Amino acid sequence: MEKEKPIGVFDSGIGGLTVVKRIASYLPQEDIVYFGDTARVPYGSKSNDTIIDYGLQDAKFLMHKNIKALVVACNTVSSIALDQLKSRFDIPIIGMIDPGARMASLHSKNKKIGVIGTRSTISNQAYSKKIKRNDPSLYVFERACPLFVPLAEEGWTKHKATYEIAEEYLLEFGKIGIDTLVLGCTHYPILAEVIQYVVGKDVKLIDSGIAAAESVKEELERYNLLTNKFAIGNQSFFVSDIPMKFKELAELFLGRPISEVQKIDVESLTG
Amino acid sequence: MEKEKPIGVFDSGIGGLTVVKRIASYLPQEDIVYFGDTARVPYGSKSNDTIIDYGLQDAKFLMHKNIKALVVACNTVSSIALDQLKSRFDIPIIGMIDPGARMASLHSKNKKIGVIGTRSTISNQAYSKKIKRNDPSLYVFERACPLFVPLAEEGWTKHKATYEIAEEYLLEFGKIGIDTLVLGCTHYPILAEVIQYVVGKDVKLIDSGIAAAESVKEELERYNLLTNKFAIGNQSFFVSDIPMKFKELAELFLGRPISEVQKIDVESLTG
Repeated sequence: MEKEKPIGVFDSGIGGLTVVKRIASYLPQEDIVYFGDTARVPYGSKSNDTIIDYGLQDAKFLMHKNIKALVVACNTVSSIALDQLKSRFDIPIIGMIDPGARMASLHSKNKKIGVIGTRSTISNQAYSKKIKRNDPSLYVFERACPLFVPLAEEGWTKHKATYEIAEEYLLEFGKIGIDTLVLGCTHYPILAEVIQYVVGKDVKLIDSGIAAAESVKEELERYNLLTNKFAIGNQSFFVSDIPMKFKELAELFLGRPISEVQKIDVESLTG
Repeated sequence: MEKEKPIGVFDSGIGGLTVVKRIASYLPQEDIVYFGDTARVPYGSKSNDTIIDYGLQDAKFLMHKNIKALVVACNTVSSIALDQLKSRFDIPIIGMIDPGARMASLHSKNKKIGVIGTRSTISNQAYSKKIKRNDPSLYVFERACPLFVPLAEEGWTKHKATYEIAEEYLLEFGKIGIDTLVLGCTHYPILAEVIQYVVGKDVKLIDSGIAAAESVKEELERYNLLTNKFAIGNQSFFVSDIPMKFKELAELFLGRPISEVQKIDVESLTG
């Protein structure tokens, strides 16, 4: 039965596990199949063409898992390839940009919103275009923070250097006086404490994973696809590489240990 | 004629351009074909199996360019896949580990050597095994510095945060009292000034690219493969992705602008 199929979630690596965590807390009964393209991570510094190719391959792998909905838990792919994915696959597809942009628009009172993300997400102006479409009177300032992903993956969530790098990246947001900051990369919630400290406690941080999890719930309701089960859903995890420190990092991102993970060859899915 | 064929050089990304620069200064008449696997960079945090697969594909691409010798300008691949490459291809193959280890052994007077590299290079103990095979009385201390590659690629070569991160990574080397430090990753020469400052001016830094360039010269002499030309050699550049900031970074690593670069599909070379 359609309703009892799993939700598919993919990301360039393990960052999307922060989104799985959010979806599971909103929709604990749903089964989830996750794919992380750890053999080719990161996507955020690569070209649009390459990101589109990789995103299509990732989605294709999950389609073979017979999913009822697809969550693109990667801001970079969401910002570039969502239309291609929607035109290719005939199930509800939820990206990270629309939900995060909408939540930011709703939260901002002084109409000054900041967005941080990978080089690719920011240079595509994915969030600012969407936020301004919601409300053209909003002012949006965006900045790429390429070192945040490696800092999160190094586990330096409270390190002095992390604070200093955050101060450099986020300085301009303070000058502009934003009241809302979109964490436009699934790795960034890991550094939320540092980011909150640097921008000040009055700035509302928007976790695009939480926004996306809300959208997943809405979409499943809309298409009458919510599971009828009462038991806690199953989660299964696939990756294209099992690198060093994988279990340790996956636990940091997912918030609990991963017992089993399967490695697959994503390049065999080309085309 | 065999002698007039180009030297092939590959790396996971653009870091290997620092090695091209060194080879060109030792052997200015030689033609060089470079391949950087920028679509799948970085390798240093991935598993050995994945690194071997990628290294074989990269080498295969260059073999199709009819090269007379192959330089594995990537410490990670050199530390894991050099034997597989040597058994597969019948031309001189020069990695980064042997030359760097030999140069370090020759330089150290107090017999305490430090090595820094990617997580993969360090966990495979590539340098320490080789250095101790040269001289078992040498003491080798190794440490992975995963943030150095993204810092180099962000161009933060003199940033306060870079100094602080270097201080954290390199603290132990000072306590041990090394007199020689191997820069076991082709990105690290970009950060040489910071590294030298932090470890102190009495510590000799070994640039594995310089060591490898010397070895390339020796190998070509040994097999009578040095070009007879007098003109400056041609250099051609291939990559699997042309990401943002590519030209800017390539210039930083190569030391001069790259006029032309061709993008190829490395995944089509599987097998």
